[in-house]
Amino acid sequence: MQQLSTKHLLGIKYLTPEDIQLIFTTADDFKEVINRPVKKVPSLRDITVANLFFENSTRTRISFELAEKRLSADVVNFSASSSSVKKGETLLDTVNNILSMKVDMVVMRHPAPGAHHFLSQHIDANIINAGDGTHEHPTQALLDAFSMREKLGDLAGKKIAIFGDILHSRVALSNIFCLQKLGAEVMVCGPPTLIPKHIQSLGVIVEHNVREALKWCDVANILRIQLERQDLKYFPSLREYSQYFGINRKLLDELDKQIVIMHPGPINRGVEITSDVADSEHSIILQQVENGVAVRMAVLYLLAAGR
Amino acid sequence: MQQLSTKHLLGIKYLTPEDIQLIFTTADDFKEVINRPVKKVPSLRDITVANLFFENSTRTRISFELAEKRLSADVVNFSASSSSVKKGETLLDTVNNILSMKVDMVVMRHPAPGAHHFLSQHIDANIINAGDGTHEHPTQALLDAFSMREKLGDLAGKKIAIFGDILHSRVALSNIFCLQKLGAEVMVCGPPTLIPKHIQSLGVIVEHNVREALKWCDVANILRIQLERQDLKYFPSLREYSQYFGINRKLLDELDKQIVIMHPGPINRGVEITSDVADSEHSIILQQVENGVAVRMAVLYLLAAGR
Amino acid sequence: MQQLSTKHLLGIKYLTPEDIQLIFTTADDFKEVINRPVKKVPSLRDITVANLFFENSTRTRISFELAEKRLSADVVNFSASSSSVKKGETLLDTVNNILSMKVDMVVMRHPAPGAHHFLSQHIDANIINAGDGTHEHPTQALLDAFSMREKLGDLAGKKIAIFGDILHSRVALSNIFCLQKLGAEVMVCGPPTLIPKHIQSLGVIVEHNVREALKWCDVANILRIQLERQDLKYFPSLREYSQYFGINRKLLDELDKQIVIMHPGPINRGVEITSDVADSEHSIILQQVENGVAVRMAVLYLLAAGR
Repeated sequence: MQQLSTKHLLGIKYLTPEDIQLIFTTADDFKEVINRPVKKVPSLRDITVANLFFENSTRTRISFELAEKRLSADVVNFSASSSSVKKGETLLDTVNNILSMKVDMVVMRHPAPGAHHFLSQHIDANIINAGDGTHEHPTQALLDAFSMREKLGDLAGKKIAIFGDILHSRVALSNIFCLQKLGAEVMVCGPPTLIPKHIQSLGVIVEHNVREALKWCDVANILRIQLERQDLKYFPSLREYSQYFGINRKLLDELDKQIVIMHPGPINRGVEITSDVADSEHSIILQQVENGVAVRMAVLYLLAAGR
Repeated sequence: MQQLSTKHLLGIKYLTPEDIQLIFTTADDFKEVINRPVKKVPSLRDITVANLFFENSTRTRISFELAEKRLSADVVNFSASSSSVKKGETLLDTVNNILSMKVDMVVMRHPAPGAHHFLSQHIDANIINAGDGTHEHPTQALLDAFSMREKLGDLAGKKIAIFGDILHSRVALSNIFCLQKLGAEVMVCGPPTLIPKHIQSLGVIVEHNVREALKWCDVANILRIQLERQDLKYFPSLREYSQYFGINRKLLDELDKQIVIMHPGPINRGVEITSDVADSEHSIILQQVENGVAVRMAVLYLLAAGR
Repeated sequence: MQQLSTKHLLGIKYLTPEDIQLIFTTADDFKEVINRPVKKVPSLRDITVANLFFENSTRTRISFELAEKRLSADVVNFSASSSSVKKGETLLDTVNNILSMKVDMVVMRHPAPGAHHFLSQHIDANIINAGDGTHEHPTQALLDAFSMREKLGDLAGKKIAIFGDILHSRVALSNIFCLQKLGAEVMVCGPPTLIPKHIQSLGVIVEHNVREALKWCDVANILRIQLERQDLKYFPSLREYSQYFGINRKLLDELDKQIVIMHPGPINRGVEITSDVADSEHSIILQQVENGVAVRMAVLYLLAAGR
């Protein structure tokens, strides 16, 4: 059986293009599985997975939990609000404790960039990064790319524009790494205050004009404007953002081509995207969610197979 | 196999008397199942159920979860406190996301009356209302009526009095609908401030004197006085409520007959009901809880069978 | 099959030495199970266990949950923060409600000492105490003694010193009872303000000098200084505690023997124990955690077998 080149999924950064392709072809199979009446396979029956969420999450946690259950794994959930973290325990102690209970795989979301990398040097279980601060969110990038590939075929040479708050987004960085490894061209588009200064060094095109970005791209991946960051002084107001950077039907109708509309959710309707775009025939937003379960099953399955 | 006339359980309002009887006879079977040493059946082995609680609940959530697990369904739990709701996502987007992960049935509690009805017009999964604001709580009404039927037989012509805060109770409304469909007579009894003005139009008798109501009824269904609403100005104080509307042993001893005592819980002992009544031989409060699991299994089973 | 002399695990106080030995030999078997590739057995397939945590806990809750799942039990979790407790329901009503749903075993953590004992007089399910205030935490004491026995063999005549906050610790009291029943000698060591006055009546040696205690003992069981109690006036400051009672490498190096280092977690590194001690070759802290799952499986299994 083919295997991933890595024991963990810490970030897209550490995957080879072959790893990504292997995840995709495995996810193809699992997508068939979850569309059958019987949505389960016994593959991970002897595996215990701990979902450690040091930050709240709904969709990512449920998506992983469903992926694990459909692989027949045993699942334990842990959320920071009820945890020893508050009692002054170190992250490594918390995780080592859980692993001592014979947990095989750890799916973790943590606010500190690099938390997963640090852990991977100290523990034996497979670690899957479900988001580390503003750094990486690799399964989101994989499911995004998987969904684009489903729609457009091979991504080599395709043009993907990422819109929105690039500075605070872990989705943006993982997307850039993943799409570039698959040979796509990547543009980021947003107000200068929300685009990190160094980003051109990653080989990414920077564009501040939404019309130009839409004209250029085959796929518009529209990121969420994080309402909880609104107090930041350098931020345009929501009304300004929506007026100058929000994607609406009129902008799409001006194009002489059709582009694919994506959004990792949760959507702020009327801010970064209008409802008529989110619900349009070009939107694959809900397919992304469906593919998320299949892609996460693939990642869990391939890492478990390497044990 | 017999089937329900509806794809969802949005409210008792939408059930036919035949639907209710079918739920009862199915629940009879499941009550036998959960009283066997082996309490499980494989009926929903291929079904994934999401429990979406946008309001806290202990007993209802656990009762549904046990019902689902005893039917061998795969279960994912979601509670609002850790949800995207706070991130500004619409209800429809939240639910559509979860459904895109191939969830077959949704058990939902939501503070907005009609939230389930709205959803049912937009999504494909079966929806079970586990409480929508002060509107309906259909499985509670079904388990209440099932428990009365177990004690008294056919409910046609039986007299049921509902005591307490009718105005803010979703249990009251669902009870009224359910009992009337089964041919019972229904009275509501409480202080005028806690009884909605329009309620007589539902064909319900209104009574403000507890002694008279007890004399009239075969069953006293005593609702919880919601301590969290105590700040409402028009509310009698707890002490006043207890003195004039609380059901105590002395009131029962004055009757020349025995009546069945019910309460949906959680009980405020010494407020709406005294301990010697709650724990008396006429109380079927704990049987209600037991029957709750059987009735919920029946609802889940019948809706799944209609898929 | 051999059985425990008791229907519940309320505290070590109620176990016979034979009970403890039976738990240990059963845990030996389960430790083998959880170290196999297939970590599960079907023993509790027909049993439903409710984990009722009226106080937060990570490690204990997860350890019990894994133990239950590896015995193939059906598990429902309940935490106080989302519970009816806030709605004014009594503990007995809450638990009776859950048991009416045909729950066979209850694992409960509760802030009130004696809460489990009270419940055991009123309900039929098996109750396992997962901590009752500052009173007992029997499974922790069992896993501690099991871990010492694994390292040192028969504990009769062995010398165990417990360091730290004896006054507020449920772990200390359960440890003392358990070790004495197994024939070990027990010393407690800490500042006078953290040692209860009556404790000598339990047949325990009291020592305020850490060096003397370390010289005396075969095993140092170092309890957590509970940061959340720091506001207590009679408490030494953390810095003082660390300086006079913290266990560091220098103290161990002064000894002319090797002692076993234990800690129930969560660790405050640099307060009651330094990292070079916690991570030293004499530390069995992570083995304790591993053994916790095996010991809890044994307790669950033996109580279920007695049904």
